[in-house]
Amino acid sequence: MDGENQAGTMVKRFGGSKALIHYGGGSVVRSGLLDRVKSSLNAEGIAFTELGGVKPNPRSGLVYEGIELCKKEQVDFILAVGGGSTIDSSKAIAAGVLYDGDFWDYYCGKRIEEALPVGTILTIAAAGSEGSPDSVITRESDMMKRGASGDAIRPKFSILNPALTQTLPPFQSAAGITDIMAHLYERYLTNSTEVEVTDRMIEALLLTMKHEGPRVIADPNNYEARANIMWAGMMAHNNSCGVGRSQDWNSHNIEHELSALYDCAHGAGLAVTMPAVFKYVMKHNIMRFAQVAVRVWGCSMDFEHPEVTALEGINAFAAFLTSLGMPRNFEELGAKEEDIPVLVENLCCGNGRDGSISGFVTLCKEDCTEIYRMMV
Amino acid sequence: MDGENQAGTMVKRFGGSKALIHYGGGSVVRSGLLDRVKSSLNAEGIAFTELGGVKPNPRSGLVYEGIELCKKEQVDFILAVGGGSTIDSSKAIAAGVLYDGDFWDYYCGKRIEEALPVGTILTIAAAGSEGSPDSVITRESDMMKRGASGDAIRPKFSILNPALTQTLPPFQSAAGITDIMAHLYERYLTNSTEVEVTDRMIEALLLTMKHEGPRVIADPNNYEARANIMWAGMMAHNNSCGVGRSQDWNSHNIEHELSALYDCAHGAGLAVTMPAVFKYVMKHNIMRFAQVAVRVWGCSMDFEHPEVTALEGINAFAAFLTSLGMPRNFEELGAKEEDIPVLVENLCCGNGRDGSISGFVTLCKEDCTEIYRMMV
Repeated sequence: MDGENQAGTMVKRFGGSKALIHYGGGSVVRSGLLDRVKSSLNAEGIAFTELGGVKPNPRSGLVYEGIELCKKEQVDFILAVGGGSTIDSSKAIAAGVLYDGDFWDYYCGKRIEEALPVGTILTIAAAGSEGSPDSVITRESDMMKRGASGDAIRPKFSILNPALTQTLPPFQSAAGITDIMAHLYERYLTNSTEVEVTDRMIEALLLTMKHEGPRVIADPNNYEARANIMWAGMMAHNNSCGVGRSQDWNSHNIEHELSALYDCAHGAGLAVTMPAVFKYVMKHNIMRFAQVAVRVWGCSMDFEHPEVTALEGINAFAAFLTSLGMPRNFEELGAKEEDIPVLVENLCCGNGRDGSISGFVTLCKEDCTEIYRMMV
Repeated sequence: MDGENQAGTMVKRFGGSKALIHYGGGSVVRSGLLDRVKSSLNAEGIAFTELGGVKPNPRSGLVYEGIELCKKEQVDFILAVGGGSTIDSSKAIAAGVLYDGDFWDYYCGKRIEEALPVGTILTIAAAGSEGSPDSVITRESDMMKRGASGDAIRPKFSILNPALTQTLPPFQSAAGITDIMAHLYERYLTNSTEVEVTDRMIEALLLTMKHEGPRVIADPNNYEARANIMWAGMMAHNNSCGVGRSQDWNSHNIEHELSALYDCAHGAGLAVTMPAVFKYVMKHNIMRFAQVAVRVWGCSMDFEHPEVTALEGINAFAAFLTSLGMPRNFEELGAKEEDIPVLVENLCCGNGRDGSISGFVTLCKEDCTEIYRMMV
């Protein structure tokens, strides 16, 4: 309980003497969380400076600002207080401070080998950034949304207090749930064979979300359901479930163009994207989709027509997301059919890509166009 | 593949300049593994000394020897090459080197706060010590077998190469599988409620063992099955599945007296112990045993008589262990009915215990006597 009061102790343990407290705004301040964190740092004699203003789909501009601030103030630890956007922005700053070039290089494929230590106090179960070595940032000059990676930016500690998530509105809770499930599906859709242990773990976490998701939408104050989801969100993306198997990430890439262009919630974009992607690629491995349909969605196996079971599972997943209040199509998301050519161009050719994206299957421009059309 | 060749790089990364290579004997030497590890250290310019001779149910004598050796040779890193016994012995040495008193203090309840860094190269999937903050040692003067704990002894890295486990004989493989499943059941038997996420993860790992166990017994060279079991063994005991829930550990404690007295394989002792313990404590929470029976062992739920389903699941688990070649009773284990009073005395009153052991349920001497009798 109230793990955030241990922030100072943890920063100290990992060698921090002057921290940047990085956060979004509003709720973290209003709830008094920021003050509790500051008190905790003060109690351990840790100096700090602060930078708020992180927005959903975090932007490069604030990252540059953070890097300059850290250099000027000789910060040696980045403490993120917030959700995935704040954590991703913190990671970008942490890497950028120790890098002579433009931090964006890391978001064009350069591996992050060195960064200031990052710690997090999580306020929403969703992105899994609290346990991952990844960060996603949108470059403001061209709204290009790209990811960077490296164990150096994996948080040294993350404080997960489910009580902090109880004030989240239903839509944000549902978007977080969708994002967590997406991290699981992206790992589930593999071309590796005989990966029983990670298959089973992914299914376990999907079953948890299936059970707990509706409970937090029905009662935002359900602490136990919030706690189960929070731990599932961590386990879904710290890659315990992803070792030794190829992964997909096509849905994430296809969605990133939507949230980059329309600034929609990443989870909401995924809710529209995943069913379309899954139906489009299903034929690549019918039995994989049938397996998740039976083991997670409780479908009866149609042994004569496994493709029926596979499709039934995708539809059950889509219906589940709708039941949580997620959008079903472009219109509900606020996306426009006429933008599809731009989305496809950015997706397949932006930032050095060669005209296709690859994962569970390789998708060329025509494939991606068809997938976006399926979402209309 | 061949991760052991990265041992030198990893020791260096965690600041080691002079390592103690700690191991058992025979197979590690004969297989050439020890030579490959030494080459890897040499390649990185890391000096080393070595200490072999760790036996199953590792002993205090070798720990004292290791501590002295490390002090004399100014060792700053302990590299375990072997299974749980070697790793546990390494952890004891790592903690003992930095402690002014008798290292056994840690095995009488003192928390380990400081230790030399430990790294491991795992050769058997079983104890989970490669990812845990725990160590179990037997004191030779009175054959007392006790555990110690502390994050300081959690390995800084563990190299898991499934190929190294392919040469294990079936009995050792089966004992390892049993130990892994025991780590899962010890966490499953909880008095915490609403712990869906960890319940599901434990079930996922049990399902994996149920699927993969028979495959490695049938074909010791099945690399994929070995790999799935090896990762399950790590995840079963690094406590990812144990967060936020009370745990049991009565079966482990009851078994420890058996392997301490008869020097039997820990996994074999657990195979005899667990079904008896489970049947004895089942009435404490019938629905918990029914849940694992249905979700893992594929039993049909008897909604009118859940206790029938609960018992069916325990019997299915016992039959599974027998099918792997594990012993079923005292006789097959090499234990003697007439020793029960000694076992109970050591268990409930040894090393400062107050006449009972506690976990899922609290068990007094009479309970433990009855449980040991059920194993005859």
